Amino acid sequence: MQPGVHLTRLTPLAFLERSAAAFPERTAVVDGERRLSWAQLRERVRRLAVALQESGIEKGDRVALLAPNVTELLEAHYGVPAAGAVLVAINTRLSADEVHYIVEHSGSRLVVVDPTLAHLVEGAPAERVLVTGAGGDYERFLERASEGEPEDRLESEDDTISINYTSGTTGRPKGVMYTYRGAYLNALAEVVHARLDSRSVYLWTLPMFHCNGWCFTWGVTAVGATHVCLPKMEPAEVWRLIEAEAVTHLNGAPTVLVILTSDPAAHRLERPVLITTAAAPPPAAVLERTAALGFEIHHVYGLTETYGPITICEWNPDWDGLGPEERARVLARQGLNMVTADPVRVVDSDMNDVPADAQTMGEVVMRGNNVMKGYYRDEHATAEAFRGGWFHSGDLGVMHPDGYIELRDRAKDIIISGGENISTIEVEGALVRHPDVLEAAVVAIPDEKWGERPKGFVTLRPGATLSEAELIAFSRETLAGFKAPSEIDFCELPKTSTGKIKKFELRQRARTGQAPAARA
Amino acid sequence: MQPGVHLTRLTPLAFLERSAAAFPERTAVVDGERRLSWAQLRERVRRLAVALQESGIEKGDRVALLAPNVTELLEAHYGVPAAGAVLVAINTRLSADEVHYIVEHSGSRLVVVDPTLAHLVEGAPAERVLVTGAGGDYERFLERASEGEPEDRLESEDDTISINYTSGTTGRPKGVMYTYRGAYLNALAEVVHARLDSRSVYLWTLPMFHCNGWCFTWGVTAVGATHVCLPKMEPAEVWRLIEAEAVTHLNGAPTVLVILTSDPAAHRLERPVLITTAAAPPPAAVLERTAALGFEIHHVYGLTETYGPITICEWNPDWDGLGPEERARVLARQGLNMVTADPVRVVDSDMNDVPADAQTMGEVVMRGNNVMKGYYRDEHATAEAFRGGWFHSGDLGVMHPDGYIELRDRAKDIIISGGENISTIEVEGALVRHPDVLEAAVVAIPDEKWGERPKGFVTLRPGATLSEAELIAFSRETLAGFKAPSEIDFCELPKTSTGKIKKFELRQRARTGQAPAARA
Repeated sequence: MQPGVHLTRLTPLAFLERSAAAFPERTAVVDGERRLSWAQLRERVRRLAVALQESGIEKGDRVALLAPNVTELLEAHYGVPAAGAVLVAINTRLSADEVHYIVEHSGSRLVVVDPTLAHLVEGAPAERVLVTGAGGDYERFLERASEGEPEDRLESEDDTISINYTSGTTGRPKGVMYTYRGAYLNALAEVVHARLDSRSVYLWTLPMFHCNGWCFTWGVTAVGATHVCLPKMEPAEVWRLIEAEAVTHLNGAPTVLVILTSDPAAHRLERPVLITTAAAPPPAAVLERTAALGFEIHHVYGLTETYGPITICEWNPDWDGLGPEERARVLARQGLNMVTADPVRVVDSDMNDVPADAQTMGEVVMRGNNVMKGYYRDEHATAEAFRGGWFHSGDLGVMHPDGYIELRDRAKDIIISGGENISTIEVEGALVRHPDVLEAAVVAIPDEKWGERPKGFVTLRPGATLSEAELIAFSRETLAGFKAPSEIDFCELPKTSTGKIKKFELRQRARTGQAPAARA
Repeated sequence: MQPGVHLTRLTPLAFLERSAAAFPERTAVVDGERRLSWAQLRERVRRLAVALQESGIEKGDRVALLAPNVTELLEAHYGVPAAGAVLVAINTRLSADEVHYIVEHSGSRLVVVDPTLAHLVEGAPAERVLVTGAGGDYERFLERASEGEPEDRLESEDDTISINYTSGTTGRPKGVMYTYRGAYLNALAEVVHARLDSRSVYLWTLPMFHCNGWCFTWGVTAVGATHVCLPKMEPAEVWRLIEAEAVTHLNGAPTVLVILTSDPAAHRLERPVLITTAAAPPPAAVLERTAALGFEIHHVYGLTETYGPITICEWNPDWDGLGPEERARVLARQGLNMVTADPVRVVDSDMNDVPADAQTMGEVVMRGNNVMKGYYRDEHATAEAFRGGWFHSGDLGVMHPDGYIELRDRAKDIIISGGENISTIEVEGALVRHPDVLEAAVVAIPDEKWGERPKGFVTLRPGATLSEAELIAFSRETLAGFKAPSEIDFCELPKTSTGKIKKFELRQRARTGQAPAARA
């Protein structure tokens, strides 16, 4: 299809144009003491795009950003593509080595860095580094931009808008390419499912560098809602902002729910807040505690390769009458495709759908507009991920009779004990139901008789004195005997920069008998 | 772009698949005594598509529907495209001659007709006619369909999904071609702006044959909301259904607002209902009366050529504090592009943008994904409509300093008096502000001195005894003297099948001095 009178390319940059036209004086961004209107945000974006083009950035060049959730990272989601360049938003919790690898692999010509993170890009293989903030050169870079609009360099809606590097729990991170079309459609799906509108206030508890903030960087803008930046995830500050800015929406890993609900500032909300949570299935007990404070919870699922969420546990209004236990049980499922996504499948190794019996495990596979274009500069990994014409998630799950999927494990996390599969997620759910348990993770340990056995790593609530034997006995009340953990260590759980528990580290600890480290 | 793992074609048929998967047992359609679940609706759609293919309907063949707002017309919006055919939903208020013309011009091989309208297709040039209803052959047609899914014949998202004939106030109606992509994107925009979700209940006061129901045929389905059919616009029945079915949304021309608010059953709503209204700018007084009953009003604007609405008077929350007069004044504007549409322009005859001064009139022009593909079998009219690379609406308007457009008139409706333009819409607004006035229409009458002068046609509220002189004097309180009507007739106003006032008929009456006819 060639562009014509009735065919214009799908681009999320159109969302900023529209909100700047509709709501020029309304608040677009709250970032500490700083407030930007939509007109002001658009002007900064225009300057950034013009300055990039004037500095010699060409169509398709990569521009890297290394910043917490601040205005500069948000505006880069518009200014970099508006210049025709590709945004590489780097995880701020990586080491300097990892950052350098991403700058090199992406071939980023320019890196924009927050002053608090400048040490991570020293010596990085980029032509130029701009530091944001009052004393930095980024502001001068914007100021020197000429008048007028940037040159429109979009060639196709299938052009790459951003590259997001995977967390790389095994091997080097891979660069996941998003398209303008995919970003546009996924952003609209987020708007529909989160019911965002011009009165919504979205709090940035989810890092923007994580799948471009699940495309909320673009979706919140599409309806002219307000972005509230949060550079650092501090629960007391989240609670303060929820009240001070009349927050209506926030997103995050289940860890965010755990942190928020267990903070001393936790209290029943005055107005409802929708939390969309993903990354791993939230245990029923966590769902219950969060709902009790007045949060509405949406459970979604996806990967970096699917622009963040691609499925949602779509709430059926017929479930309104269920009790809290049963509500949590149906909501713990990952559900079905979001409105602009294609249906997902659960398949066996021959790509046949597994029976929808809630028991037969298979791999979750996806395709469609909400799946990445491929891995940047890695044709081999792309071909491998897309074998059989579907993207292979590496996640194991079941299909329920009602067509909702439920994850059982990462392919590499599943425990095989005496020939039986044990879902670590199921065991974790049983542990976390104990009122003294804050968080739990389960991994396989080698066992001479059974091959593998489950071992638990558990963080207790402050002041709790639960013993290993008591907790194992408790888990047997709901688990089949062979699924109950053989051992439990009490410790802090190691997390990735995106809040996922580092199971590979726990497996290593379990193998080596290394003492649990304090939380990083 | 070729379809691939990450590129699937945009089609609103995906919305039905998703809602049938998410909400199989929930109510999809209420149609009198009949209720269909999403699973049942999907099964009827499957049968229709398979039966069409088995009856010899080929890719791209046209299938016409002539029915009021009933299940069969809704299911045709899915079943006809699912067969690879093109839906031609015909206006039910046309004459037999007009219906025959559309069947012939579209080359519809099959016509599906409601039993109450069968007389309109007798002798129509189609190969086959199927009559719906208990005694008809349409149900047997569905029943004979084989098992299994229809063959997927979609070639491109730019394929034609439907042809909608214009009302043809001048000359023969033209066939406006919608694409799968345009229908998909417009339906999503309607969902976002109307804030539809799975708990919404949409009442079909707007005819489905009107721009495919402004794409709500597809949008309501996208979120799994409920369609409540309404075969005939009877205000008492509307009021009954609003309460009985817990309606949350309905759409219609401003006439619908007038009819609803002046009905004896009118009462303050128990729960809010969003009315999206278009077709002509609602006079401020009508907006005020409707809001007073508890309706929320969205004002949108578009044409058959723009899939129905393409602009919305996006409400700025900063306006919440305005008084009723001022709220009505800002809401009477047509606003700016909807979220998936491109910005609209107001241009002079050289395609230059008029100044955004709220005064300089120009023609409203559009382009983008929410503009038709072209007129079916009419390259000349298509080229004429798309001259300069933009679709020419034929509507005259101004651009406000805040970027919102406001219509002043149809190009052919404008009155030129003593060299000054008089907007008939402005004069009508002044008349309808009088508490005794129900509706008003203004047209030009020839005048030896001034060239043209405005003449009003007014319907009074029951029991009112307002005189011509009194109403003219009233209008002079808010209008410049030269804009006040020279004459006023009190009568019923003639309407098109879609609720638009037939100004050409009023102009004819005004020229010939013919006595006003009773409402048809």
